[in-house]
Amino acid sequence: MYRRLIRDIPDFPEPGVVFKDITPVLANRAAFTALVDEMAEPFRNAQIDKVAGIEARGFILATPVADVLGAGFVPIRKPGKLPAEVIREDYELEYGTDALEVHRDGIQAGDRVLIVDDVLATGGTAAAASRLVHRLGGDVAGVSVFIELGFLAGRRALDGTPLHSLVVYD
Amino acid sequence: MYRRLIRDIPDFPEPGVVFKDITPVLANRAAFTALVDEMAEPFRNAQIDKVAGIEARGFILATPVADVLGAGFVPIRKPGKLPAEVIREDYELEYGTDALEVHRDGIQAGDRVLIVDDVLATGGTAAAASRLVHRLGGDVAGVSVFIELGFLAGRRALDGTPLHSLVVYD
Repeated sequence: MYRRLIRDIPDFPEPGVVFKDITPVLANRAAFTALVDEMAEPFRNAQIDKVAGIEARGFILATPVADVLGAGFVPIRKPGKLPAEVIREDYELEYGTDALEVHRDGIQAGDRVLIVDDVLATGGTAAAASRLVHRLGGDVAGVSVFIELGFLAGRRALDGTPLHSLVVYD
Repeated sequence: MYRRLIRDIPDFPEPGVVFKDITPVLANRAAFTALVDEMAEPFRNAQIDKVAGIEARGFILATPVADVLGAGFVPIRKPGKLPAEVIREDYELEYGTDALEVHRDGIQAGDRVLIVDDVLATGGTAAAASRLVHRLGGDVAGVSVFIELGFLAGRRALDGTPLHSLVVYD
């Protein structure tokens, strides 16, 4: 159901990249409801305290998953966006580095955290998000993404953290 | 319940502004679940086809509201972020202008659309979002926000569109 709704956008956001546009999936009520349920499914009995979503498309999927799991939501954002005290993790891009931040009081020691994003590519952002959770004493129960770009081997960057993906492109 | 969890951040994002930080509400599972239900409540029987969320904090609230209402989700984003063909609306800021975009195929003629954002301030962004929906032939069934800054009179900018807010600061 999902694959026929995912739209390939060539040369976005930059030349040579084929972007997987999931907005037609989100706009379709049946697909959207199914997507949220399926992303949450393996974690229904995992006693998740917080779902951490990665800015900005990760937010879209993380909050309904949190609502379905009866968990709280914690935003993981690009630097300078969060208003209170944060901790920060840098990560490598193909060219250069980027960084993510989380509020220091967003995660409490012992919290069981599910990390949610739209796409797992090289795994750099998900791994940085995991490090943020660990530094605050949280336990990363898993990573749930809609799309896994299998050819980029991001799964390996997660060091054994359970990864759940609904659509895999090899 | 909500007010004691909303945190005032002075001088964010710029000097002289007191930012209402809702992240402690989102992180609290009971408050978060209640918030989503209450934002959706008046629209449960309104046959909403799409919930349109305004980047980026509007996304956080719009998708669980869409899930609860059994509706699809449409992102309204800052210029250059959406990958497919868009339409654009400019709106006034205190100093200068900003703009919002939506995918041209995000709304179909006749769609009943609920617009969701975190905060209603002057109403400029919500009004611009409404214009985008109208230009695509959609019907704006209402605007649902968590916080209304009543002293900025944003309600007036909505021209009679039903506004639902959970917390009002006068």
